[in-house]
Amino acid sequence: MVQKVSEVVGTSKESFAKAAENAVETAAKTVRNLRWFRVTELEGRVTDQKVSEYHATVRIYFDLGP
Amino acid sequence: MVQKVSEVVGTSKESFAKAAENAVETAAKTVRNLRWFRVTELEGRVTDQKVSEYHATVRIYFDLGP
Amino acid sequence: MVQKVSEVVGTSKESFAKAAENAVETAAKTVRNLRWFRVTELEGRVTDQKVSEYHATVRIYFDLGP
Amino acid sequence: MVQKVSEVVGTSKESFAKAAENAVETAAKTVRNLRWFRVTELEGRVTDQKVSEYHATVRIYFDLGP
Amino acid sequence: MVQKVSEVVGTSKESFAKAAENAVETAAKTVRNLRWFRVTELEGRVTDQKVSEYHATVRIYFDLGP
Amino acid sequence: MVQKVSEVVGTSKESFAKAAENAVETAAKTVRNLRWFRVTELEGRVTDQKVSEYHATVRIYFDLGP
Amino acid sequence: MVQKVSEVVGTSKESFAKAAENAVETAAKTVRNLRWFRVTELEGRVTDQKVSEYHATVRIYFDLGP
Amino acid sequence: MVQKVSEVVGTSKESFAKAAENAVETAAKTVRNLRWFRVTELEGRVTDQKVSEYHATVRIYFDLGP
Amino acid sequence: MVQKVSEVVGTSKESFAKAAENAVETAAKTVRNLRWFRVTELEGRVTDQKVSEYHATVRIYFDLGP
Amino acid sequence: MVQKVSEVVGTSKESFAKAAENAVETAAKTVRNLRWFRVTELEGRVTDQKVSEYHATVRIYFDLGP
Amino acid sequence: MVQKVSEVVGTSKESFAKAAENAVETAAKTVRNLRWFRVTELEGRVTDQKVSEYHATVRIYFDLGP
Amino acid sequence: MVQKVSEVVGTSKESFAKAAENAVETAAKTVRNLRWFRVTELEGRVTDQKVSEYHATVRIYFDLGP
Repeated sequence: MVQKVSEVVGTSKESFAKAAENAVETAAKTVRNLRWFRVTELEGRVTDQKVSEYHATVRIYFDLGP
Repeated sequence: MVQKVSEVVGTSKESFAKAAENAVETAAKTVRNLRWFRVTELEGRVTDQKVSEYHATVRIYFDLGP
Repeated sequence: MVQKVSEVVGTSKESFAKAAENAVETAAKTVRNLRWFRVTELEGRVTDQKVSEYHATVRIYFDLGP
Repeated sequence: MVQKVSEVVGTSKESFAKAAENAVETAAKTVRNLRWFRVTELEGRVTDQKVSEYHATVRIYFDLGP
Repeated sequence: MVQKVSEVVGTSKESFAKAAENAVETAAKTVRNLRWFRVTELEGRVTDQKVSEYHATVRIYFDLGP
Repeated sequence: MVQKVSEVVGTSKESFAKAAENAVETAAKTVRNLRWFRVTELEGRVTDQKVSEYHATVRIYFDLGP
Repeated sequence: MVQKVSEVVGTSKESFAKAAENAVETAAKTVRNLRWFRVTELEGRVTDQKVSEYHATVRIYFDLGP
Repeated sequence: MVQKVSEVVGTSKESFAKAAENAVETAAKTVRNLRWFRVTELEGRVTDQKVSEYHATVRIYFDLGP
Repeated sequence: MVQKVSEVVGTSKESFAKAAENAVETAAKTVRNLRWFRVTELEGRVTDQKVSEYHATVRIYFDLGP
Repeated sequence: MVQKVSEVVGTSKESFAKAAENAVETAAKTVRNLRWFRVTELEGRVTDQKVSEYHATVRIYFDLGP
Repeated sequence: MVQKVSEVVGTSKESFAKAAENAVETAAKTVRNLRWFRVTELEGRVTDQKVSEYHATVRIYFDLGP
Repeated sequence: MVQKVSEVVGTSKESFAKAAENAVETAAKTVRNLRWFRVTELEGRVTDQKVSEYHATVRIYFDLGP
């Protein structure tokens, strides 16, 4: 069994957990058999002196194969 | 004063914060005098193309002694 | 255009996202033109065997200039 | 000349070297002109208190081109 | 909004900046909406005791979506 | 579900894979429910100008519980 | 003798070396006695599928004094 | 032969070397056959604008077995 | 409560501990409420084939506020 | 007692363990009193879509002096 | 085939690329069969508030043997 | 001007500072024009449950040339 690792950045206006969720669920539209993710960076945008977006960079692991 | 460092992985269906909390509170059942924790890895499981679990690996610091 | 990077630790009783938000919003009182932040450490305090505070160390990027 | 880097996890019941080999040879079915790999993580599964699988995460470099 | 991260190695006979530029512009032939890159490794080939090629490994961020 | 992480160094006269296996199987004598390991360091002893021992430092993950 | 370390991001349309130079020279307008810098990140913006800006994050060391 | 790695934080009012020594000697009360330590973090407390404590986080290696 | 992190390099002709102490005590002249420091680099100057200075780069944490 | 650290890359057609062994044994022809090695990178060459060589970069520690 | 890795710091008044080139070409006067280099640090000197020198620390790989 | 970097491990029965000093002064017997050192690892031996030796791994920078 072989897995591929792909790296995606998700965003959310609410929390880092939602940003990671967003990354995974967008990836799931084009890739089957997602199994695991690991967060590698947590960042955010600041607008008008407030946090306006949470970003999570995630490595996504999925099974290769039919 | 000497502290020991222990490493534990907690899980939660809701968020990374709850997963860390879960790790700490389970450790607290067998170890006294927990003081501090540091998150070293944030990961998660994907089931049916959705995030089904958040995992937090935490280093837990506690006082050694009576 | 040049940006300065400043490092701040925010705390929250609720979550890591609130702790990061807190760091950014306190910094915003003395520094103008905040643009971006990156989380570099997630830690927490434990009191009476429960998580009592979430801490987020964040690098904050802001524009230098008039 | 430009190369692309792809990341794949291979498994083997025998050794880390076989796991890396497995990752490379599975990748070779869909990507041409593989040139080089670098191991970035060595892990394994434990079943019934014995090592049951060796896993190697490898970065694979291949030539982009016609 | 979700971004994908891709990793590419560019080469140049002149400088590290040209090598990074080369990586980005080759990637741009097959991927739309490139936004940002980060250099992760700078290397080079030596031929006849002189630097004959500069290599830059770059992580390229691009918007996913139509 | 909570896992504990423990760190152990195994040795072998044959290979890094055997050294990791040795670490896991010795740990298994005192800890139940081992699930996973990650290699964090590969080292070795040299005697009479030859490799005489392979050492593997491994982080071992096991389920906490009854 | 004590030095302070400050972190600044410079940009240039030409090269990473110019971006670092730009960071240093802008910092020099408000800080005296700059001595040394270390590059910690090289990044860039992509516009219309071409590199449009080079960014260099630099740590700047300067003497603290009377 | 298998070694276990344990992580401990020692403190001293005098120096980092004494803090490491303190960590090792406290660990020695409950663990036999300590062989080696590696310092992984050096920190300190500041009280009334002076260093009041040196802390050394050390990984301690000891032989498993009778 | 929010803390700021500042980075300073101290020097001493005697030891790394004195160099860190020196960094902290010089910083204390302009910043109130220092709480904690972490050593990030230990370096030194060599003159006439002997160590002539110990340098410690320290991250200093202090409370922001009135 | 003082040790010197030297860095060498060994290759083997069979395994990473043999590649490390090869590095050590070649170094042993010119350097006396080798004691220890640490693997810092595991890489490999791919030829005709198969792994054709395993490479191990090793830091070798040897005693200075007669 | 075995390669040795050597580490050298080159300087240039013009750019990081020239500094790396300078390191390689000076090393080439005493070492034969240089093949590859990897940049591990980019630093610089500041004089009169301007960048006066670019420094590149490079790991140089060369073939051992006749 | 080009500098070479060499890596040496010094030992002392007293402190980490003496161990670094020892490494530098032993290196000075065979290499001229030492300028700078950076500590990369601090370790120690434990004998009869007490610290019996401090070890400091140092990178030593020296000028190449006559």
